[in-house]
Amino acid sequence: MDTIRSRRSIRKFGDASVEDEKIDIILDAGRWAPSGMNNQPWQFIVVKDGETIEEVAGCTTYGDIVRSANLLIAVFLDRDRMYDGTKDTMAIGACIQNMLLAAHSVELGAVWLGEILNRREKVNQILNAPDSLKLMAVIAIGYPVERATSTRKALSEIAHLEQYGHPY
Amino acid sequence: MDTIRSRRSIRKFGDASVEDEKIDIILDAGRWAPSGMNNQPWQFIVVKDGETIEEVAGCTTYGDIVRSANLLIAVFLDRDRMYDGTKDTMAIGACIQNMLLAAHSVELGAVWLGEILNRREKVNQILNAPDSLKLMAVIAIGYPVERATSTRKALSEIAHLEQYGHPY
Repeated sequence: MDTIRSRRSIRKFGDASVEDEKIDIILDAGRWAPSGMNNQPWQFIVVKDGETIEEVAGCTTYGDIVRSANLLIAVFLDRDRMYDGTKDTMAIGACIQNMLLAAHSVELGAVWLGEILNRREKVNQILNAPDSLKLMAVIAIGYPVERATSTRKALSEIAHLEQYGHPY
Repeated sequence: MDTIRSRRSIRKFGDASVEDEKIDIILDAGRWAPSGMNNQPWQFIVVKDGETIEEVAGCTTYGDIVRSANLLIAVFLDRDRMYDGTKDTMAIGACIQNMLLAAHSVELGAVWLGEILNRREKVNQILNAPDSLKLMAVIAIGYPVERATSTRKALSEIAHLEQYGHPY
């Protein structure tokens, strides 16, 4: 719960590269996400190479965040493994969240990038990914050099007891 | 990481009801999920009432699982807060995963039910939820009376290094 509550999007990273053992932990967390019928519709491409990171940075208006990262994980929906578009998309969200939590738990910072999906074809081309893989997010990861804050709505605004309209 | 790795879907629950403090923890975990533009597109309806649980059980072929639970959390996408269908759907997945992890962390069992979406209009009617709320999942929760096992694909089957086709 501490990990869930204290995780924030980190958008600026230090120079230190991310150790392979930590990358393994993050990927393993993604792997263990739940999915409908346990179909595991995800594929990951891990990018550590600086030139590739630079190319991916060119695909988003948030290129500075990408450039600052030492590690990217591109997360794809594998169209060949789908069984239900909505449920598979939720499973990808669960998978990404597992990886964000894992990164935070080993003192890394990370941010879930979505704007880059506007240029998903270009990202696929850079990463040599086939059309059967649909880019769903790029996670930028590194050692945090900022403290970020965020807020959430109160439970009374989003939760109801027994029936809609009875604030929790 | 232990919580992520050891969580399993639990489909059979004991009679003990879930303490309110634990329900608060689960909802708070859902609340703290990330979402695009921090739009927090989720709404929850917490169901503890036995008659309502019975009615909801009638909406799925997995009614026995629902009946066995002492607590349901119906998770909705709030159409009035959407900004991008795919990203909002992933955010709901992240939110559900946070709640599943939180439940497991306080020794509860839970299962993410999806088949019930086939009768989402009926569930909305039972819970008095407006059409602006789209049912995305029902989480059934209680004290576990079974140990469940599951498996995942190896990382080499789902992860690639630098470019697609170079197994991690």
